[in-house]
Formats: sequence, structure tokens, C-alpha cells
Amino acid sequence: MRMFDIIEKKRDGGELTEQEIHFFVNGYTNGEIPDYQVSALLMAIYFQDMTKAERAILTSAMVDSGDKIDLSAISGIKVDKHSTGGVGDTTTLILAPLVASLGVPVAKMSGRGLGHTGGTIDKLEAVPGFHVEITGDEFINLVNKNKVAVIGQTGNLTPADKKLYSLRDVTATVNSIPLIASSIMSKKIASGADAIVLDVKTGAGAFMKNLDDARELAHAMVSIGNHVGRKTMAVISDMSQPLGKAIGNALEVKEAIDTLKGNGPEDLTELCLTLGSQMVVLANKAGSLDEAKAKLKANIENGKALEQFKIFLASQGGDASVADNPDLLPQATNKIELSAKKSGTIQHIVADDVGTAAMMLGAGRATKESVIDLAVGIVLNKKVGDPVKEGESLLTIHTNQDSIEDVKEKLYASIAISDEHVSAPSLIHDVVTKQR
Amino acid sequence: MRMFDIIEKKRDGGELTEQEIHFFVNGYTNGEIPDYQVSALLMAIYFQDMTKAERAILTSAMVDSGDKIDLSAISGIKVDKHSTGGVGDTTTLILAPLVASLGVPVAKMSGRGLGHTGGTIDKLEAVPGFHVEITGDEFINLVNKNKVAVIGQTGNLTPADKKLYSLRDVTATVNSIPLIASSIMSKKIASGADAIVLDVKTGAGAFMKNLDDARELAHAMVSIGNHVGRKTMAVISDMSQPLGKAIGNALEVKEAIDTLKGNGPEDLTELCLTLGSQMVVLANKAGSLDEAKAKLKANIENGKALEQFKIFLASQGGDASVADNPDLLPQATNKIELSAKKSGTIQHIVADDVGTAAMMLGAGRATKESVIDLAVGIVLNKKVGDPVKEGESLLTIHTNQDSIEDVKEKLYASIAISDEHVSAPSLIHDVVTKQR
Repeated sequence: MRMFDIIEKKRDGGELTEQEIHFFVNGYTNGEIPDYQVSALLMAIYFQDMTKAERAILTSAMVDSGDKIDLSAISGIKVDKHSTGGVGDTTTLILAPLVASLGVPVAKMSGRGLGHTGGTIDKLEAVPGFHVEITGDEFINLVNKNKVAVIGQTGNLTPADKKLYSLRDVTATVNSIPLIASSIMSKKIASGADAIVLDVKTGAGAFMKNLDDARELAHAMVSIGNHVGRKTMAVISDMSQPLGKAIGNALEVKEAIDTLKGNGPEDLTELCLTLGSQMVVLANKAGSLDEAKAKLKANIENGKALEQFKIFLASQGGDASVADNPDLLPQATNKIELSAKKSGTIQHIVADDVGTAAMMLGAGRATKESVIDLAVGIVLNKKVGDPVKEGESLLTIHTNQDSIEDVKEKLYASIAISDEHVSAPSLIHDVVTKQR
Repeated sequence: MRMFDIIEKKRDGGELTEQEIHFFVNGYTNGEIPDYQVSALLMAIYFQDMTKAERAILTSAMVDSGDKIDLSAISGIKVDKHSTGGVGDTTTLILAPLVASLGVPVAKMSGRGLGHTGGTIDKLEAVPGFHVEITGDEFINLVNKNKVAVIGQTGNLTPADKKLYSLRDVTATVNSIPLIASSIMSKKIASGADAIVLDVKTGAGAFMKNLDDARELAHAMVSIGNHVGRKTMAVISDMSQPLGKAIGNALEVKEAIDTLKGNGPEDLTELCLTLGSQMVVLANKAGSLDEAKAKLKANIENGKALEQFKIFLASQGGDASVADNPDLLPQATNKIELSAKKSGTIQHIVADDVGTAAMMLGAGRATKESVIDLAVGIVLNKKVGDPVKEGESLLTIHTNQDSIEDVKEKLYASIAISDEHVSAPSLIHDVVTKQR
């Protein structure tokens, strides 16, 4: 078998066999096939696409290239939730204890990563004492005991995907649905969950800027997951404006606590209930989505969800009293209001620009070396569709910096106020459960 | 400027600027841009094509990457002829002295190369004493004095093309019209001719198997040539069966001599007159193609063309008496007839298979290290459309080997005899002088 023939076949629109896909993934991972042949193949895939079968095989080949997490020692159906990424996405902090409170085992492997704010682990570390330095055995035991635990990424997962992604990143072959879908799914599958709920974001703050692309990606991932024997579904949710109100690490922990108490922002609460019901149903803890949703709402109202969050925090060294007194979380020195320059209705709040503003404040990492300031960030006081009066606060900036004129300027530019009536965007655009 | 943006622009169907094309060609040649980015760009070009302007700029950038031959010391308009390659293509050996006999300066830089037979230099070396080891000054002086000389390739011509071709060869990006056209034209332009006549072959023995592709390539090259200020035209000629009758080095020299005497094969003579008239008109040695053709025919009939060949051979150390006595050329030990197994009409003679058979006899190089046997080869006694009787000789195999059963088998498989009437294929499919 020759890599040349594989490139030529894909270039001419052919369907690669399992043998051919494994040949190129393994050969590239172990250094036998050079970068320049793989980048030519990736560009050919960009133009010629891959069939459902090819996508599933590529995903499996990437999974097989490295370690696989074994969660079989955890009883019950392990359901993982994955978001394609957005601004102010606090859902994981809420969903983990929320579905765990209904007996769904949540074995969350998470990262830090780059972005507008830190990753789930960074956010949780805003809780004094909380840490993820636990062994694999401790992790399994904690999930079996408390139904929820979080650990940093361990093992050498999907090295083929890492190497391919690095190459795609410099050869303009990132934006390819089969390559994006197989990359995300390979990591999820190697992480060992039995079922996967995907939150595919769409809009200015998302990787997929328009709904058609988001829908295509959702279908592609759902198809791959089910093809390789993991029950998978996707929710397509809005990311034109930030989700919820808080963007920042400690600020999002506080927002999660509010939401677990039933006092969270409407959109964030709705998305958590939507994703959560899917997780509960996939885990066989409810017979229908309606039943699942009712149970989740009940556990928010009766305090069980918040209680589960406290148990979770305490089990990993965290000060659970933050749940009752969020002021124990890191606080920024300055709270600065951004006041409206005119009256009207909020027309848009460009999500990625607000995210960038948060990063400028120090809430996220621009490079791997950046140090995060857990206290800082932005809290929106208005969202799209809300009426506002001149001088009223649009948002509150939590900062430890003295001069933030550039941040304010960026934020003013990201928010438009209209004289006309503006409706809030719909939050859930689609739910994808069947392969197209 | 970033290579990433150039790849992305071409991927999305954009037109690259002169600055962008020079950036990537220069950056790749000097090693600043890695193979893997260039192969991604080449694959994007494969799918998105290049505009006429882009092709011309790419060609010029490759010309500028290395040495350029300066033929300005040669008086008159230097016209070069280039064939895209076929089987039994003896045209250069005939055309060089033929057009030189009308005063057209022929400063031929030629190679050895791989293929079914040797290159022009190998063929000429079948003439005892002939050599191309002359200096650049001697070369120029010979052309000024005799109107024709041949030299081996000198200087570091189009290193960018060499590097790009090596990469295309292993990334399935060879078969791209803009890349093929710019590659060929860059070498021709760097070689210094004022005008270029292209012989684009089509059919089984050619790189372009079908007429549409050949026509597209011809138009692409004519456009590039004229775009960069070199008068360029192309003839599209048939290569479904071998051209002429001889395939082999000394055998083709003998065939060239026959043709210069007016006794050559009909198709080879016709192609030489067609290409030759174009060269004569481009060199301003005739006012029309008809006039040029008549002059060429006259110089064959009056012996001036053959005389010019003798002068040319002698001027580079060759034994000019071969022109009167071709038996002085290297002769193979065995001449074996391949007799027809049935009566009928020759339906096809698959050119590349006959070429491969000649290479099996030792007429060409399979690798750079192969040693050519100048004496061996094949002489067709029948061509497509000819009637043949069972037992009659289809062709004569000139060989120094004892056992050639595999060659005979290959040749039998390449020739089909039909019970029906078969017409000879037309030789000239098209003449391309205008940019499409």
C-alpha cells in the first residue's frame, strides 16, 4: 500500500477503505508517512469530503492511536457532555452535580486550555482548596461514591488527532466537517463514556458561525458516535450573544451556584435543563425527556442539586461553604459599570468580542504560558431584546487593572442599541438524534 | 505575508497576486516555507485551478528562481521546439537541420532523461564521434556559423520547478493543467528562445491520453508563453500509435536521414513539415505557412537539408558519412521479424506498450543508472490502417539479447488486427495559435 495511491484516490472522489485509513493514520503517527503527503490528503478531503463510513473509521483509527480511558469500574451508564465552545458557557459546572443528583454517574475528564476564560478545571479552582490532583483509582472511587468527580486529562489520548490537528492548523484544512467531527469524537470516545450529549454552538461566539454549518457538524458527530457504538445526540444552541450573564472563572462559579439554586439566568437554565434531560434519558434514569426535565427541576427546587455540588466540591478538597456564601470566591478589586450611551433595545452583544474583552482583563489564556486571574471578568446586566435607558448599566466589569479604557471601548463596540423592537434570539435551534 | 493565508485564499477559489506567488515560490525554493504547506497549496490549486495571470506569474517566478540562458549573441529569431513526449518521436533530429537550412538559428539545449529511448543527445551519439561536450561560447559560435548546434543542459535552470515537481510527484498533484503548463514553459523560457513551437501529443503513448486534456494543456501553454512575451503556438498531434516507424536510438537517426532525403515515413514527414513551417514563419523566414512549407519541401528535394545535417554532425565531431551510408551506425546482432498471426487490417498499435518493449530491449533508461544500447529497438513494418497477411512481418526487432520472448509477447499484445476496415488516425488534431 502506498500513501500516493491513497491521496490520488481521495483526490478523485473515491471512498477510502478501512485498511487505507488505518495505513495513513498509523503511518503518520509513527512518523513513516511525511507531513507533506498527509497535508495533500487533508486538502483533498477538504474538497472531496468523506462518507459516513470513512468518518467513523478515521475516528476509530485516531482513538486506537493512543490510550483509552477505561470507565468500566464505574457502575451505571456514563454519559459525557461536550460543548464545541462558546463565551460564558457555565453549563458543565451546573450539569455535573445536577444530573449526578439523579444518579447519573459523571466521570468528567477536563482541561485548562486556551480561550476567553479558563477551562472547567480553572473555573473550579476558584473554589478555595479545590484540586484535581487525584489518582485514577481515587477518581473512579469518587464517582462510584458521589456520582461526580473531575480529573485532569491523563494518558496519551489520540496522539494521531493531536498530530493531524497541528498539521491542519498550518495548512488551512481545519474547516472541514469530516475532520472537525472525527477530531472531536475521537477524543470523546477515547475518554470512555458510554453515551455522549453534544452541545453544538452556532453564532458569532462559536466556531460554527452559521446554523447550516452547525447542523452539518452535529449530524456528522451524531453519525460517527452511533456508528462506533456510542449513543450520541446533539443540541444546537445559540452563541450569538454570551450564554448566561457571567464571563470569567469565579464569576461563572457564582452563576452556577445561582442556577443550581434556581436563580440562574433564563437561557443558561433552559440550556442546562435541555442538555440535562437528554443525559438523564440516555443514562436510563427517566423514561422520557419530559419526565427527566421534571426530575431535574425538582432537584433544583428541593436543594438536592446544590447539595450534590457541595459534596462534589468537598470531596476534592474544596470549600463547600462557597455555595452558601459566594463572596468567599476570589473578588476583583474594581467593579466598573459600563453605562448605556442611549436608550433603546439591546440589538446584539457580539459574543466573541465580549469574550476577547474578558481575556484582555486576564480571565483567559492567550498562550499556554499565560496566568489566569480567576477573579476578573464581565457580568452582563442586559441581554439581547432587553430595554435599556441612557445611563443604565449594560454590564459590570470586574477587574484588577487600573486602566481598562481599551476593554471598555471593545465592549461598547460589541453592543448595539436599537430604536426598534428586537426579539431575544431563540436558544435551542435544533435537536439532532437521528443520523441524516 | 503568511503562507497560511495564501493556501486559504486559493482553497476558497481566490486569485493569488504576483506578490503572493513570488512569496511562496521564493520561500519554498530557499527552504523557508515547508513542504507540507506547499503540498496543501498544490492540492488546492489542483481543485481551484489558476487564472491565466496566475499561471504566467507562477511561470515567471520559477524562471527567476535560477539561471537564464542568454542567447542574445546569436543573430536572428531563435525558435525552440518542444514535444510533450511520445514514442518514436524523431522530429527534433529532422527539424533542427531542416529549418536551419532556411536560415533559422537552432540553438538546441537537450537532455538524456528517462524513457522508452534515449533523449536527443543519446540518439545523436549513435553517430560515431558526435559529442556535445562544447563550451557555451563554442555553442553560440557554432549556431552563428552553421545555424544549428546541440549542447547538454547547463546552468541551474528553474530550481523552483525541480523542487515543486519532486513534491508534486509524491503528493498526487502532477495532473494539474496550470502546474504542468507552468512547469514546461518555465524550462523553455529559461532556455532563452524568442519563440516556441509546442508539439502536444495525445493518445495512448502520450502524457495527455485524451484530446480534450491535450487541447487544454496546449491553450494553457500558448497563453503563458504569449503572456510573458514569447511568441508561442502549439500543434496537437496523434500519439495513439508510435510516430514514424523506428523506435530506438540509431534506428531513429537512420529514419531521420531517410526523412531528410525525402524517403521518410509519411506521418513523420507531415509532422516535421507542419512544425517546421510554424518555426520558419515565427523566425520571419517566410511570409506564410504555405510558403514556409514549400521552402522546406524544396530543401529536402534539393539536398540542402541533408547537407545541413552533415555540416551539423561534422561540426560536433560526428562522422557525417553516416548520412550517405547509415550502415555505419551501430547495428544490433539479431533482426527478428514479428509475423502476423492472422490476416486483416491493423486496428491499433498501442504506442506506450511498444515503447515499453523497446525499453525492455535496452533502447531506453528505466533509471538514471541504466546504460542504453544505442543499436537496439523496433522498426514497424505496418501501421494502423495497413492491410496485413498472416505470416507477414508486422515489425522487425533489433536486439542484442538471445531470448526476447517477453518482448515479443508484449508486442503481440499491443497490436490488434481487425477483420473490418480501419482508417489511419488523423495526425494533426489541432493547431493552437490564439489564447482561448
